[in-house]
Amino acid sequence: MKTNALSKMGQRTTEPPISWLTHAALSRPKLISLAAGFTDNASLPVAEARTALNQVLRSPKTGQPALQYGITAGDTTLRQLTARHLQKLDWGGTPCRRPKNQGRRHAVPPEIYSFERLLITSGSQQLLYMTTEALCNEGDIVLVEDPTYFVYLSILQSRGLRARAVRLERDGLNLAHLESVLQSLKRSGELRRVKMIYLVSYFQNPIGVTTRFEKKCGLLKLLKKFERAAGHPIYLLEDAAYRELSFSGRADLPVSQADQQVGPTSPPSALAVPGAADRVIYAGTFTKPFATGARVGYGVLPEPVFTAVKHIKGNHDFGTANLLQQLFVRALASGSYGRHVARLQKRYAHKARVMKLAIKKHFPPAVEWGEPEGGLYFWARLPHGLSSGMKSKVFSTALKNDVLYVPGEICYADDAARRKPNHEMRISFGNASEKNIREGIKRLGKVLRKFL
Amino acid sequence: MKTNALSKMGQRTTEPPISWLTHAALSRPKLISLAAGFTDNASLPVAEARTALNQVLRSPKTGQPALQYGITAGDTTLRQLTARHLQKLDWGGTPCRRPKNQGRRHAVPPEIYSFERLLITSGSQQLLYMTTEALCNEGDIVLVEDPTYFVYLSILQSRGLRARAVRLERDGLNLAHLESVLQSLKRSGELRRVKMIYLVSYFQNPIGVTTRFEKKCGLLKLLKKFERAAGHPIYLLEDAAYRELSFSGRADLPVSQADQQVGPTSPPSALAVPGAADRVIYAGTFTKPFATGARVGYGVLPEPVFTAVKHIKGNHDFGTANLLQQLFVRALASGSYGRHVARLQKRYAHKARVMKLAIKKHFPPAVEWGEPEGGLYFWARLPHGLSSGMKSKVFSTALKNDVLYVPGEICYADDAARRKPNHEMRISFGNASEKNIREGIKRLGKVLRKFL
Repeated sequence: MKTNALSKMGQRTTEPPISWLTHAALSRPKLISLAAGFTDNASLPVAEARTALNQVLRSPKTGQPALQYGITAGDTTLRQLTARHLQKLDWGGTPCRRPKNQGRRHAVPPEIYSFERLLITSGSQQLLYMTTEALCNEGDIVLVEDPTYFVYLSILQSRGLRARAVRLERDGLNLAHLESVLQSLKRSGELRRVKMIYLVSYFQNPIGVTTRFEKKCGLLKLLKKFERAAGHPIYLLEDAAYRELSFSGRADLPVSQADQQVGPTSPPSALAVPGAADRVIYAGTFTKPFATGARVGYGVLPEPVFTAVKHIKGNHDFGTANLLQQLFVRALASGSYGRHVARLQKRYAHKARVMKLAIKKHFPPAVEWGEPEGGLYFWARLPHGLSSGMKSKVFSTALKNDVLYVPGEICYADDAARRKPNHEMRISFGNASEKNIREGIKRLGKVLRKFL
Repeated sequence: MKTNALSKMGQRTTEPPISWLTHAALSRPKLISLAAGFTDNASLPVAEARTALNQVLRSPKTGQPALQYGITAGDTTLRQLTARHLQKLDWGGTPCRRPKNQGRRHAVPPEIYSFERLLITSGSQQLLYMTTEALCNEGDIVLVEDPTYFVYLSILQSRGLRARAVRLERDGLNLAHLESVLQSLKRSGELRRVKMIYLVSYFQNPIGVTTRFEKKCGLLKLLKKFERAAGHPIYLLEDAAYRELSFSGRADLPVSQADQQVGPTSPPSALAVPGAADRVIYAGTFTKPFATGARVGYGVLPEPVFTAVKHIKGNHDFGTANLLQQLFVRALASGSYGRHVARLQKRYAHKARVMKLAIKKHFPPAVEWGEPEGGLYFWARLPHGLSSGMKSKVFSTALKNDVLYVPGEICYADDAARRKPNHEMRISFGNASEKNIREGIKRLGKVLRKFL
C-alpha cells in the first residue's frame, strides 16, 4: 500500500530541530553542547525532592491521596498555593498594590488571582498546546515575536496554523510594528483568523529581552482596538517560563531570607494590566526553576478559554500526576522551593558571568552579543552575510570542532513579509559545566575567527 | 462581543459526563459512589513508592538524571523493562513460543517487542489521544465496541470524528457484524474515512468481556481485506488498560512467588497475531495496576505511526516526567511492581465477590447481570423499557437514596444504525470499601425493586 493512513496533522508534524541537534551530540562523545535548554545538573534539588516526597509518602493518610487520581484542573491546595505565589510575583506581597518604584500604582481585583481560574498542567508546554487547540482552527493566524521559542513554532506548523512575526526591541515587542501588522491583516481581510499573540515575556527565549510592563499595557490596548474588526476577542498568551530565573532580585538576598522576601523581582505579568485580565492567558511553570524531571506547570485563563482547556485536558490525561503535584505542594509550603530558586538564580548569574568573560576573550569583535539579565541564553549576531544556519559552514565547522549551538534561523517563523535572518546563534549556559562553558566558547571563538 | 474566539474543537469539547457525576457526589456527603473508575484506596502502594523514590533520590548520581529532562520517547531502561514485561504477558516467559493450551503454537519475531517501537506516555489515555491525532482528520470514522469506554467517545466528539458501533458478545467483538459494518461503509463510499478500530480487549470497560485471541486474528484479517478499498492501512488500537487486573492468573499464586511466575495470565495481545504487528497499536498502563496518581502508560506502535506520535508528544510535553519513569524502573526491576499486582488482583477478586453476593441478595430477578473475571466493573441490564439514563426516574431515585452508578447510555456511541440502549448500568467495586459496596448495592436494590 503506497499511501499511509496518517492524518494531515500526523503528516505535518516533523522531527523537532532540537532532536536533530541532540542526535548530532550523541554521535560525538567529546562534543560540548551549548544548544539544549536543559537546566544545570549539579544544582538539581535531589535532597529537597526526597524530603518532600518522604513527607507525602510517610503514611497512608497522606500517601494514598497522592497515589490516587485527582481532579482534572489540579489539586486544590496546589492551585491555591500557586495563585498566591503568582500574586506575590506580580504584587510583591502587598495584595493589589504595587510599590511605586516598580510600576504603576493601581489596584487589580483579587479575583484575577483566584485559584478557580488556575489549571495545573504537565509543564507549561502542555498549556501552550491545549490553549492553541482551544482557540485555533487550521489556517488561523498567531502573532509571534521575531524570533521566538522554536517548539511553539513546531506546534503551529503541526496544527496547520500560520504565524505572523512582530519585531522585537530591547524592551520587548515593537508596538508600532504590531499595529502595522494588525492593520495589514485587517486590510487583507484576515483579521478574523487572528486568535492570539504569543509572547515570551521574561528573559525571552532566544534573545533574552524582558517586555516592559508599559508595553504589555499598550499591547493589550492595541488588541482590543482591533477586536471589533476581528469579530471576536484576541488573546495574549503570556509565556513566563523563565520569569523566576532572574539574576538580580532574590539572588541578591541571603538565601536564608529568600522565602520571606516580599517585593517583586521582575515586571508584573499582563494579568496586572488594569481591565485586561479577560484577555490574558498566563503560562507559568515550576519545572524550570526547580526540577525539569518533575513536569508541573500552570495556566491562568479567562472564560470561556479556561473551561474549554480544562475539558480538553480531561481528554488528554484527566489531570497531571497527583504525586508530582503533591511534591510541589510540600516544596512551596515549606519554603524549600523559594530557597532553591534563590540558590539557582545565583548559580545561573555566576555561569552567565563565566560565559560572558569567555565570549569577551574568544569571540572576534565583529560578532555582536548582549548580556542577559536572566534565563539561560546568550544571543550572538554574526555580520550579515555570514550564515550560522544548520547547513552553513560555520555550523559544520563548529560540529567538527566539537561544539554545538542553536542556529538562530530555527527560532524564526515562516513569514513572507520579511527575509528570515540566518546569521545568529543561541548559546546556552544552562546545562554545561563552568569548565565546558569556557572550553566550548573557546572552540566556538576559534571557529568564528576562521570566518571573520 | 457576542461571538467567542474558541476553535471548533474548543467549542465541541464538552464537560465529560463523569465530572457531572462527580459533582453530584460532592453535593451529597452520604452518597456512596459506585460510578467512578477510581482504584482501591486502601491498597495503594505507599510504602513501595516511598522505597522506590528513596532509591532514585538517594544520591546526586541517581537523583539528578531523574530530576532532569529526559528524551521524548521515554527513558531507555524503562522502555526495555516495559518491552520485556509485555513480552512476558504475551508469551509467558518463553520468548516467541506460547504454551499450547494458551493459544496457537506459532512464533512471533522478537522485534515486535523491541523497546524501539515503544513510547512512554502520561497514562495510556495520552496515547489514545495522540494516536487519534496522528491518524484521524475531522470527519473520519473510528469503529468502536458497542458499548465502549466513554472518555474515548469524548475524544472522538471533541475532534469532530464519527463513530460506528460494532456489536459485542461474551468473547469479544461480533466479527460478522464488523464485516457487515465494513461492507456498508464500502458501499456508501466512506471506507476511506475509516482509519482504525478501537478495542478495549481485556475485562472491557464497561461490560467486562475479554476478547478471545482467535477473534483478534479474525479481526485483523478482516481489516486487511478491506484495506484495498480503503486505500490505506486500517489499524487496530488495542486498549489493554485492565489487562493486569485479572482475578485468576497470578492472584492464585502465593504473593512471594508472583514476580518469578512465568506463563501468561490472559490471552495474548494482538501484537502476537502472526504477521499483523504492523497494524496493531497497543496501549498499556502501569497506572491502574499500581498507582493512579503516578501516571505512566505506554504504547507499542508500528511505523509510520510511531514516529508521528513521538513528534506529536514532543509538542505536547517533550516526554513524560522523568521522576515518575524512574519510579517504575525501580518498581519493575525490584519485583515490587509484580508483587503489588498480585496482591491487588486478590483484593479486587475479593471485592468483586462481595459485590456479587450483595447483588444476588438485593437485586430483583428481572435485572440481568454478569460476573466479571477481572477489571473494576459489574454491568447490569434492566428490563427493556425501564430507563437507567441520566434523566430517568431510576437515576434520580438512586441519587435521592444516596447511591450513584454510571448510566449505560453514556457508554454508547452516537450511531444512527441502531437505537441507543438506555436500560443498563455500570457498577464499580474499585474505589468503594467493602462496607460501602454492601450498603450501596442494598440501596440500589431497593430503588430497583420500587420500579420492578
